This record gives sequence, structure tokens and C-alpha cells, in this order.
Amino acid sequence: MTPNRTAFFVSDRTGITAEMLGHSLLTQFEHVSFTEITLPFVDSAEKARDTARQIDQTAAKDGSRPLVFSTLVDKELSGIIQGANGFYIDCFQVFISPMETELAVKSSHTVGRSHSVRNNNSYFNRMEAVNFALSHDDGQTTKQLDEADVILVGVSRCGKTPTCLYMALQFGIRAANYPLIPEDFEAKKLPSALHDHRKKMFGLTIRADRLQRIRHERRPGSTYSSMENCEYEIREAEILMRAEGISILDTSTKSIEELATTILQIANLHRHVY
Amino acid sequence: MTPNRTAFFVSDRTGITAEMLGHSLLTQFEHVSFTEITLPFVDSAEKARDTARQIDQTAAKDGSRPLVFSTLVDKELSGIIQGANGFYIDCFQVFISPMETELAVKSSHTVGRSHSVRNNNSYFNRMEAVNFALSHDDGQTTKQLDEADVILVGVSRCGKTPTCLYMALQFGIRAANYPLIPEDFEAKKLPSALHDHRKKMFGLTIRADRLQRIRHERRPGSTYSSMENCEYEIREAEILMRAEGISILDTSTKSIEELATTILQIANLHRHVY
Repeated sequence: MTPNRTAFFVSDRTGITAEMLGHSLLTQFEHVSFTEITLPFVDSAEKARDTARQIDQTAAKDGSRPLVFSTLVDKELSGIIQGANGFYIDCFQVFISPMETELAVKSSHTVGRSHSVRNNNSYFNRMEAVNFALSHDDGQTTKQLDEADVILVGVSRCGKTPTCLYMALQFGIRAANYPLIPEDFEAKKLPSALHDHRKKMFGLTIRADRLQRIRHERRPGSTYSSMENCEYEIREAEILMRAEGISILDTSTKSIEELATTILQIANLHRHVY
Repeated sequence: MTPNRTAFFVSDRTGITAEMLGHSLLTQFEHVSFTEITLPFVDSAEKARDTARQIDQTAAKDGSRPLVFSTLVDKELSGIIQGANGFYIDCFQVFISPMETELAVKSSHTVGRSHSVRNNNSYFNRMEAVNFALSHDDGQTTKQLDEADVILVGVSRCGKTPTCLYMALQFGIRAANYPLIPEDFEAKKLPSALHDHRKKMFGLTIRADRLQRIRHERRPGSTYSSMENCEYEIREAEILMRAEGISILDTSTKSIEELATTILQIANLHRHVY
């Protein structure tokens, strides 16, 4: 029997930080089921009062007060929310005061700026990383591979594209990807355009049953999506990647966040989450 | 004169939560310049001791102790880090104990699971959302537009693609995008395939100087990238979008996080950060 509780993530900006921290904390309570609601842009007294009302109504409906994770920095706004019938968890202010003491400066108490376009150059670079990932997706071009931070290789549909896009969007990393195909297995080596870039290359692999399921969604009943062919391609790709000395990561058991983190760590690339 | 301090983000998993919260907190201290270092996968006593050593060395080098934002849940590991010469900021445990009291259950004290592939179906849907965004990028197809959660329209290079990819990757939202081109301006209406989907359509616009800069990077000296043409397209696109009753957002002043958050809020779509 799992009691159901509501959790609100309240922010004066996008709410991404509040939601990510709050959600991480909730996963520590696996025997409680939570309804999670994010309320972004709570940046006026009126919106704070609306939020307080929503918290009160939820408390009445649920029969228990909701958890309220907040990153509000404005004391008037947070005061209004704290007046509602919720369990208020201050994700931000609780740290600010000890940090002020440690750093011996006052904080600026400005509303969340970590997800704004404040730093134009860094934002522009990140968008360029997205463009790079798109134009270097699926081996579309081998031009400018020297500008790539990393190059992912692996069989078709093993997870290269989402991983590259994630690295670009979240970390501003320039990631290309290249599919390994039967011609490469027969040649028993990497395409010549890739050969010189082995040092920044990472191999992705996947369990055959998972690949089969993904390929079947695209092309049901094809040779391409048959279990036999999936097993063959995965086996040959792994042999090739090992022979070329490329680190291999398994996308069946790792999320794109875990893959990206592992790749950046091995490649010793500086990361900066956006 | 801005003092320089080092900040570490230490995690037993990807470090994304620690880094995002820690970075948000650091932006509140705009007169201090920080060197930010993320240390993910600190999941053994040996790695914790390596981390402690790195903190000590940095403290000696900087002449001031680093800030250490940690989401470690294992007490042995966090104890080792706390023994180092850093200012330890516990981003997780500080909330767990009050939450245990409020929820009247003990937390599971398992290592971070919010960025794992634990929930297979949700993860699969998210990857499908990425595929949807890619196959419906730049008006490639008008098939399955009824399956789209949102459709972004706007002139070429105004930011539709990164915003769609971000919504897919971060929130699992199915987002298509369609470029508005001179033929649409002359016809003074949306392409017929889009017409029925106006309710889930959002218009992006951009300042002409910014668009000019972006287009110039792609096709220097072309009519396409000329200031005159950029101004013309933006003006006509805004007239068309207004006439069709489509909400317009400006990508010059809003980041993709802010655009995504605003769109999901207006569209009343449930969001779930991954």
C-alpha cells in the first residue's frame, strides 16, 4: 500500500533546478507514490498567491499536505508560499546563508539566471554544438571531424544520435556519430576517414533483443530488424571496435545521461551543464 | 577585483543534479569567479579518497578551501570527503531527514537513480520523442502531425530545431517544426497541412541582427543572410502568425530552457524532467 502525495516544484524561472533536485530526492522514497507538478515563472505576488491557493486545494483534496520544493529567492514570494498548507522545502536559501559566510560576500538575491541567455557566447557555442551534432549525424559527412570533441560509432539504432544530441544540448560538446555497417565488418577496419580520429572515438553497443525491438518499430519483418541480423551486427561491431582499441559502452543498461557523463570523463573533457 | 574559488560537484552517479543546483547557487555570487569541476561516479572508498586528495591539493594551490557540493548518499563516502579541506555542502542529506519525518517513512539511501534507465517505458518514450523531433524537423514531413504535442513555426534558423530537440530530450515531448518561407508569406496563410493543427502551434521569432549573424555563418554574402531579407522574413512571419492567432515567443531573449518551459506552460502539457 503506497500512500499518494503531491509534490510541487516552484520556481521564479524555469523550475528545472527545483524539479531536478526535488525529483532526485523523491526517488529516495520508493514506497511513496508522488504526483509531481512543476510551477515555473512564479515571479509576482499574484502568481505566488495563485500557487498558495493551488497548494491549499491539493492539501484538502489529498487529505495530506503537499511537499513544496522551492527555489524562490524573493522573500515576499516565498513568504506567501510558506503561508500555504504545504511542507515547504527551501532548495536554495538554506545554502545561501552559509555560502555568504564562507565567501564573505552577500549574494545578489537575483532570480534564477542559470537557464537564461545571459552569457551570449556560451549560448551561441552550445547552439553551434547542436548544429554540429545534426550535420554530423549518422555519418552524413566526414568533413570537420577534426573539430569534433568526440565521435560515436556503433551499429544502426544503438543510441548514437540521442547521446550526441544530449551531449550537445546539455554540455555544449561537439559530437559526431558514424554507423558501422556490414561493409566495415567485411573490411575488418574502420572507414579510412575515421581512422585518424580513433583517440576521440567511443563505441556504443546494445543487447540484441533491445536492438531488435527498436529496429522492428522502424522496419517490421525486415532482414535489418531480424534477431539473427541484430546479433550478427552487434558481434561484428564489437570485434571491430575492440581490434581498433575503442572504449565500448552498453546503451542497454546506461541512460544517455550516464553515457554522456562516462564519455566526457574518459575523454577528460571539461563539462559545463546548462 | 574578484577572488577566484574552486567549486567541486561530487556525485555517486552522473553529477547532473549536484552540478545544476551548485551552479545555480554560484550564480547568486556574481562578484566571485568560480572554477567549476564535476566529479561523477564517486562510488567507492578509493574514489572518495582520490576526491578528498584533489580537494586538499586545490585548497593548497588556491590558498582557500574549495566549495564542495555533494549529492552522495553513502555515509562512509561522504565522511571521507568531509574530512578534506573543503567547505562541504550537502545537497541531499540535509533534506532527507525532514522528508522522512514528514512522510513517516525511511528513505532507501540508494545511490542516485534519477538519471538511470530504471523506468524502461518512460525512457523508451523519451527516445521516441527524440526520433519524432528529428523526423519532423524542418518540415521534412507532415505525416503524423496529429501525434505531435506541439508544432513550432518560424523563419529558417530562428531556433526551432534546438528548442524541439530540447523538449524531446529533457521532457519527452513530441515536437515538430515547420519553417515559414516566402511562399507562405505570399499566400498569406499557413500551409494547408498545418492549418488544422493551429491549436498546438507556437511561433518563434528573433531579432533581425541576431538572425543575420546566424545565417551569415551558414551562407556568407547570400541574399538569404542579408539584413534586408532577414528583416523582411521576420516581419512577414510575425504578420502571418498573428493573423493565424499563434502565440509568438522571441528566441533572442529567451533560452531554449525558457522557451520550452513557456511553451509547455501555455500548452498545459505535463512536464517531467529527466
